[in-house]
Amino acid sequence: MSALSEGLTQILIPLASLVGIGFALLQWFLVSRVKLSSQDSSNGYKQKLIESDEEEEGINNLEISIKCTEIQHAISLGATSFLFTEYKYLGIFMCVFGAIIFLFLGSVKGFSTKSEPCTYSQGNTCKPALANAIFSTIAFLLGALTSVLSGYLGMKIATYANARTTLEARKGVGKAFITAFRSGAVMGFLLAANGLLVLYVSINLFKLYYGDDWEGLYESITGYGLGGSSMALFGRVGGGIYTKAADVGADLVGKVERNIPEDDPRNPAVIADNVGDNVGDIAGMGSDLFGSYAESSCAALFVASISSFGISHEFTAMSYPLLISSMGIVVCLITTLFATDLFEIKKVSDIEPSLKRQLLISTVLMTAGIAVISFFALPSEFTLFNFGTEKEVKNWHLFFCVAIGLWAGLIIGYTTEYYTSNAYSPVQDVADACRTGAATNVIFGLALGYKSVIIPIFAIAIAIYVSFSLAAMYGIAVAALGMLSTIATGLAIDAYGPISDNAGGIAEMAGMSHKIRERTDALDAAGNTTAAIGKGFAIGSAALVSLALFGAYVSRAGIKTVDVLTPKAFIGLIVGAMLPYWFSAMTMKSVGSAALKMVEEVRRQFNTIPGLMEGRVKPDYANCVKISTDASLREMIPPGALVLLTPLIVGTLFGVETLAGVLAGALVSGVQVAISASNTGGAWDNAKKYIEAGVSEHAKSLGPKGSECHKAAVIGDTIGDPLKDTSGPSLNILIKLMAVESLVFAPFFAAHGGFLFKFI
Amino acid sequence: MSALSEGLTQILIPLASLVGIGFALLQWFLVSRVKLSSQDSSNGYKQKLIESDEEEEGINNLEISIKCTEIQHAISLGATSFLFTEYKYLGIFMCVFGAIIFLFLGSVKGFSTKSEPCTYSQGNTCKPALANAIFSTIAFLLGALTSVLSGYLGMKIATYANARTTLEARKGVGKAFITAFRSGAVMGFLLAANGLLVLYVSINLFKLYYGDDWEGLYESITGYGLGGSSMALFGRVGGGIYTKAADVGADLVGKVERNIPEDDPRNPAVIADNVGDNVGDIAGMGSDLFGSYAESSCAALFVASISSFGISHEFTAMSYPLLISSMGIVVCLITTLFATDLFEIKKVSDIEPSLKRQLLISTVLMTAGIAVISFFALPSEFTLFNFGTEKEVKNWHLFFCVAIGLWAGLIIGYTTEYYTSNAYSPVQDVADACRTGAATNVIFGLALGYKSVIIPIFAIAIAIYVSFSLAAMYGIAVAALGMLSTIATGLAIDAYGPISDNAGGIAEMAGMSHKIRERTDALDAAGNTTAAIGKGFAIGSAALVSLALFGAYVSRAGIKTVDVLTPKAFIGLIVGAMLPYWFSAMTMKSVGSAALKMVEEVRRQFNTIPGLMEGRVKPDYANCVKISTDASLREMIPPGALVLLTPLIVGTLFGVETLAGVLAGALVSGVQVAISASNTGGAWDNAKKYIEAGVSEHAKSLGPKGSECHKAAVIGDTIGDPLKDTSGPSLNILIKLMAVESLVFAPFFAAHGGFLFKFI
Repeated sequence: MSALSEGLTQILIPLASLVGIGFALLQWFLVSRVKLSSQDSSNGYKQKLIESDEEEEGINNLEISIKCTEIQHAISLGATSFLFTEYKYLGIFMCVFGAIIFLFLGSVKGFSTKSEPCTYSQGNTCKPALANAIFSTIAFLLGALTSVLSGYLGMKIATYANARTTLEARKGVGKAFITAFRSGAVMGFLLAANGLLVLYVSINLFKLYYGDDWEGLYESITGYGLGGSSMALFGRVGGGIYTKAADVGADLVGKVERNIPEDDPRNPAVIADNVGDNVGDIAGMGSDLFGSYAESSCAALFVASISSFGISHEFTAMSYPLLISSMGIVVCLITTLFATDLFEIKKVSDIEPSLKRQLLISTVLMTAGIAVISFFALPSEFTLFNFGTEKEVKNWHLFFCVAIGLWAGLIIGYTTEYYTSNAYSPVQDVADACRTGAATNVIFGLALGYKSVIIPIFAIAIAIYVSFSLAAMYGIAVAALGMLSTIATGLAIDAYGPISDNAGGIAEMAGMSHKIRERTDALDAAGNTTAAIGKGFAIGSAALVSLALFGAYVSRAGIKTVDVLTPKAFIGLIVGAMLPYWFSAMTMKSVGSAALKMVEEVRRQFNTIPGLMEGRVKPDYANCVKISTDASLREMIPPGALVLLTPLIVGTLFGVETLAGVLAGALVSGVQVAISASNTGGAWDNAKKYIEAGVSEHAKSLGPKGSECHKAAVIGDTIGDPLKDTSGPSLNILIKLMAVESLVFAPFFAAHGGFLFKFI
Repeated sequence: MSALSEGLTQILIPLASLVGIGFALLQWFLVSRVKLSSQDSSNGYKQKLIESDEEEEGINNLEISIKCTEIQHAISLGATSFLFTEYKYLGIFMCVFGAIIFLFLGSVKGFSTKSEPCTYSQGNTCKPALANAIFSTIAFLLGALTSVLSGYLGMKIATYANARTTLEARKGVGKAFITAFRSGAVMGFLLAANGLLVLYVSINLFKLYYGDDWEGLYESITGYGLGGSSMALFGRVGGGIYTKAADVGADLVGKVERNIPEDDPRNPAVIADNVGDNVGDIAGMGSDLFGSYAESSCAALFVASISSFGISHEFTAMSYPLLISSMGIVVCLITTLFATDLFEIKKVSDIEPSLKRQLLISTVLMTAGIAVISFFALPSEFTLFNFGTEKEVKNWHLFFCVAIGLWAGLIIGYTTEYYTSNAYSPVQDVADACRTGAATNVIFGLALGYKSVIIPIFAIAIAIYVSFSLAAMYGIAVAALGMLSTIATGLAIDAYGPISDNAGGIAEMAGMSHKIRERTDALDAAGNTTAAIGKGFAIGSAALVSLALFGAYVSRAGIKTVDVLTPKAFIGLIVGAMLPYWFSAMTMKSVGSAALKMVEEVRRQFNTIPGLMEGRVKPDYANCVKISTDASLREMIPPGALVLLTPLIVGTLFGVETLAGVLAGALVSGVQVAISASNTGGAWDNAKKYIEAGVSEHAKSLGPKGSECHKAAVIGDTIGDPLKDTSGPSLNILIKLMAVESLVFAPFFAAHGGFLFKFI
């Protein structure tokens, strides 16, 4: 028996969620104390600029403040309107896909309302398959709505914070940092707490119907993960295409052809570019990590439901994954204080160490937190099912599983940093290769991305081996959860990046001084690295989550072995390994074509609008926003369909073994493509920044802006954009989503799948 | 019983080899009738220019002929000297690795000279393990020597033919085509026939010792494949680095910075570039395809030796793989006549169809050939072993296995052509993306490469499924052999490319007229596409060969299942899938750094040698040759070590299951990387050629040479160089070589492997 009573568990989990939400609101309140001057009458209020009495440049300059507010308003409006348009499409998708889930799962036993004998807790009767179909559909819809809400809230706070960060930058880099970081924390805590709370409430509501049938309960709950991830897919792909089409288009004409700075207000695509940061990097990332979190929780809960404590209905032990997440919220809360209150950022060079320290602090504290939870929430010994055999597990085994996931995440994060930060030799070598032009820059960048795969893969492999050896598939599921347990901090430092990026954009557009722009650039450079770290986390956790889901799928589909030596599994493996390429081809081509359209529009405006280049006339921002919106909504459908239809088609036509092969193939190949794409892109971006900033003798010898080296670096950066922000990060959704979808549909495939092979 | 008697089989196989060699010599003789004028006294003879009496430009211009001869001599000298230096290193490697094979395999039974009970033909005694160690080592050395010889012969004929092709181009495009194609055929037939003959003779010599112990005989013979492929690895990697360092270096300074044409004699790296074509594309490709051929034969023979006809010692049925190859030589001989004698090339646009027709003709004829062999050489029904179970197979099953491999190869070839030829929309789209600069060109090119993976993977998957379903692992082995059965034709059209490329280079360097250069350019453009097709074949066959070797390895290591759900296999799978990235990172970085050195040297010469740019002074070609040579020899060692040590380390420390996972992972991931890298590079190359040639309205709107679009296209082409000629094609050796090495060392791993896991 667990030391922690069921009653206390039922209090602690919602309490942690509420603390998380409360902390997020507190941060929001602190950010909101930075006042904007709003001339905008559309929301009917007018704020007065009240600032501290420190005297720095332009602090009391009402005009600049008004300008910033205007720009922020335009960005927020663009982002909101895009998200709402996207949600209309997603609403239709949710209904259709919800119906598919209901029909497929309902048909397993021919929509019968008869109770069934349980699969695992033998001798008992479980709820009918039809109930599972209904509740899976409900869970799917709940997951989808939570995911959409997560993305939306993230976008809202980001567009609320960007101009405030700009204004704070007038007072110093420390103030600006705190504002951007607090805003990131709002998003991080809201998502983590919200995800936990909805999941917790759903389980308790579902229990009202399911009662003692925990098998059925946790089977249905997996729909939550599917909902979360399918929304994340469209969010990532749609947002990624949006942001990169705008970014590539803006850069190619503005920076390369017209030689005007980034974020110059004369560039017609500049608003679209800044909107893109919020819908792609913020809303997309939010949905993505929420999806990972939801899936790893569902995978762990599903596997746990057929363990000895699942069958004997020990609620506390069963809630171990939720308790880990609750502890994570508390740990991240303490960690955040280190950045906002305990240490002060005094100079530019403090920023990156401060963000990196967040990772380390949260990991160290969380290790202790995991130990506490493992000893109090779990029985000291219990039994897990491992593909038909039973496995004896001790509570400290699970501690190691969660902890190794957590630390593997840290290693992946730091490796990513090493390969993408311009403080180290890999990026500096790439920058150096610009001496001989864009071609060598690209060759070196691609090689860097390939090389950066090595350590993360070993970290993942070791985490898998240890956690599987200790606690079979449950071990892998909780290792994934361990990696994601500090999600609030991860998201905070991740969201910090695009907020700083936007802040810089607003400073440039508002015509603020060079000094301010330098400060926001420093914030942004650190943000670039943390964004890469965030992607590393997202991919690493996706790999573990997918494997856990894969294991759950295999259990649920009743497969005993996935033998590579059978042709059914092998062709699945090789075709699965191909899917990330197919998917990347689609998304990259989409960005490319949308960017071509954007380039043509921007060129057209520069050529046909007289006075635009001289800054006398405003460009037509709205047209560029429209191009990005249309392109992303149209182009997100084929890759989305590829990911969502593959498991359905393979499972129905070729059966569960081939589908298992496809999942394994997509997993092992997709991880490599995703990591290398993200890091290559991040490295090119920072190689360019390295040349621009010119902080060392070496960097100065390559620069300045506008030199041949710099031009070569800009080409690399542009190529990296779709790699690091569209195809790379979408791939982790591909592998997770196919796995969770297979898990949800497993009963159908097991009953009716493999149609084609049966026919032959 | 087979309809074909053993005696007749013993005559037919060597006869086919000798016919092939004779045909190759005949082609060589026909090429040699194009006379060069040699002023070179080093080989002590002086040829007089005797040409036909057709009157075209400069045919009787002795000076040009002498110049061509000189250049050819310089290229030949450079290539020979590089290969001999390389062979010195390889000689040391062969001795060391031969000793490793002997020690590892000998230690399986503690170097005992006692006979052992057989594994499959129960009740009989087989030769001692020590004998297998000795004969495996001998087979390894034989394979290595044959591979080296294949590469060397290919290089010799290519450097013999290039200037002759240039001289023939003065008479017309048809004559030049015939010369280049005949020279390619010399290489194709020599390699195919030579490989078959050495294998046949070795088997018969080994039989003198082994007698009735066919298990041991064909186990030892697998060393032949290992020898072939390990040499191919170094040939491909070393040659690939050599050629691309020179090519990238020459292009970056010559074409981009100095604006002088390709192959301009003023460029100091031009001789190194042309030498590179011969040592990389010709010698490397020759060793590579010979390796594939040797391995697929060995895999098929090994699997067959434990079939019912293997155990009952039916020599004819056992020799089915060799008979297929013999038939292949005859079929390719007929096919060649279609290009050289039956059809005539009258205009430029005839070239590509003629080469493509070769593929189709050889495939159609070979299908009939396979049917003949299958019906006469095989018993109508027999039993195969399928991982412990037995499988009943009919002779027409095997016909389908070989045929599906053959046709899958054709599909892969044509798909490759579609994605890399500038006659179709994919390459035209990439060219079009150059409008907006190098970045969009690269994005579209990468997307094209990813997309081009889809159809080949489906073709391979279907071939695997069908052949495995019909005849288990033997089916896959003979499918691979089917794909390679037309190797002579494949190599002929493949070698034709670099010969034409060199011919063009010689024309430029000899200062021949624009008209001649246009003709050689047309030959070269067709060669680019056929090179891509050749790479497609090499990769497709490598995938099948590796799978067959993988199956043989699993049989020999005594593994019953390779279950993805066990952590041992799964971590192998994910780490294996990472290896192609690690390997590519190494090779691309090597090309990048070597190219940087080359660029500096070429720049130095242009800057410090007065009169070089004006063409008054000759550059220092030798220094550039030295840079390429040193770089390639130094840089080929780490990737080579990665490939060769991985199976040894994994097998010894982690055991046979993890190694099986690694092989499967490397296979399914490596195929994708290899195909996409080759096709991306090929597409960029032809997109550039498309803009240069300006054959359509669209192409003209992008050109001409030197336009912004063209510059963007050149950047793409340069990036593609290491992808398509170094890392891409080396990857198929990675997957094959690791598989065959595992197979050879399987007895050791099975007996003593998994040290680390045993220890834990």
